[in-house]
Amino acid sequence: MKIAEPTVERLVQYHRLLEQLYNEGQKVVSSQEIGEMLAFKASQVRKDLSYFGEIGKRGVGYHVEKLYRHIDGILASPRKWPIALIGVGRLGEALLGHKAFKSPKFDIKALFDVNPEKVGRKIAGISCYHVDDISDVMRKNGIEVVILTVPSSVAQECVDKIVQAGTVKGILNFSPLSIVAPDSVLIYSVDISVELEKLLFYLKHREER
Amino acid sequence: MKIAEPTVERLVQYHRLLEQLYNEGQKVVSSQEIGEMLAFKASQVRKDLSYFGEIGKRGVGYHVEKLYRHIDGILASPRKWPIALIGVGRLGEALLGHKAFKSPKFDIKALFDVNPEKVGRKIAGISCYHVDDISDVMRKNGIEVVILTVPSSVAQECVDKIVQAGTVKGILNFSPLSIVAPDSVLIYSVDISVELEKLLFYLKHREER
Repeated sequence: MKIAEPTVERLVQYHRLLEQLYNEGQKVVSSQEIGEMLAFKASQVRKDLSYFGEIGKRGVGYHVEKLYRHIDGILASPRKWPIALIGVGRLGEALLGHKAFKSPKFDIKALFDVNPEKVGRKIAGISCYHVDDISDVMRKNGIEVVILTVPSSVAQECVDKIVQAGTVKGILNFSPLSIVAPDSVLIYSVDISVELEKLLFYLKHREER
Repeated sequence: MKIAEPTVERLVQYHRLLEQLYNEGQKVVSSQEIGEMLAFKASQVRKDLSYFGEIGKRGVGYHVEKLYRHIDGILASPRKWPIALIGVGRLGEALLGHKAFKSPKFDIKALFDVNPEKVGRKIAGISCYHVDDISDVMRKNGIEVVILTVPSSVAQECVDKIVQAGTVKGILNFSPLSIVAPDSVLIYSVDISVELEKLLFYLKHREER
């Protein structure tokens, strides 16, 4: 089963919404309601959920808790992911403070930077190492996932060190430059400039119509 | 012409890559090369570029400068967008320092927060107002685009104030909760938790295969 990226994106969004509804005590939800809350078509919601094996009852909808647990199982991690963050600048620090990193799915084991005021210290309770020690520290800690928040100019250099470690399976890249790695390392890029450009393009496009 | 989101995403990536190649003095580039650098199929590159009216020469490729200027024209802003950022916390400050915001396409005219140490001051040269004054300040400055980096608990409340201002056409939302606005306001969400979840899901999926 190969799942397309937009489907995974929607799956994660269903999961989050259902968690919210479940915590609020809602018992059932219709595809129309889900669609409205997430700005998807109801038909898309039904198609996605039936693809993952859940079919709502006509006129009733989906059982919130059951659907939540079902999607939770699909997204569940088989184990805690050992993670490192490289680049403890403003963006790196903002991410460290982000609720996403409080998830039980992963464990931030190491930070890396070049700033002498940061290297050798603990930041948010996590040891910060020099980027020169990436390969060593990654191997010692069995780091599998890296969050990369370094300036573009050093991004590829860091990736090369990460690849050299041999333990890393995925990189979440926030650097605005294209980076390359062998197929064994999955790169997933979030580029804030690209997101802004996309929004502006849509706004321009709307005005032109 | 309705352009699908993944196409816009790729278009922005072509643009960035071509700018880089152009600045490096490269004269021609093939669809294979573009594909390799961006991890797209060469056939996808050819399809996308021909859709936007550019056809490469067989055995030669695309003229870098010409292609760059062509895509630049498609993405060009008709004018500078007046922008505001709401929520000058760690993420907000990281974004303010991000190179994306140094683009001539937009002009950050106002910041908003609730922190008395920030309200009434200038941060990175931009005036910071209280969130209670969102509608007023937005109207006075004709703000059209908002970057939203507030905690989830107050995101919808801020959106309601933004909508009330009546000048805002688009919101780039970094808050991890679903927010709603009338159709006249385009919401584009970047959720760091979702991006991480997606990466982990792909890694899990890879291991299972």
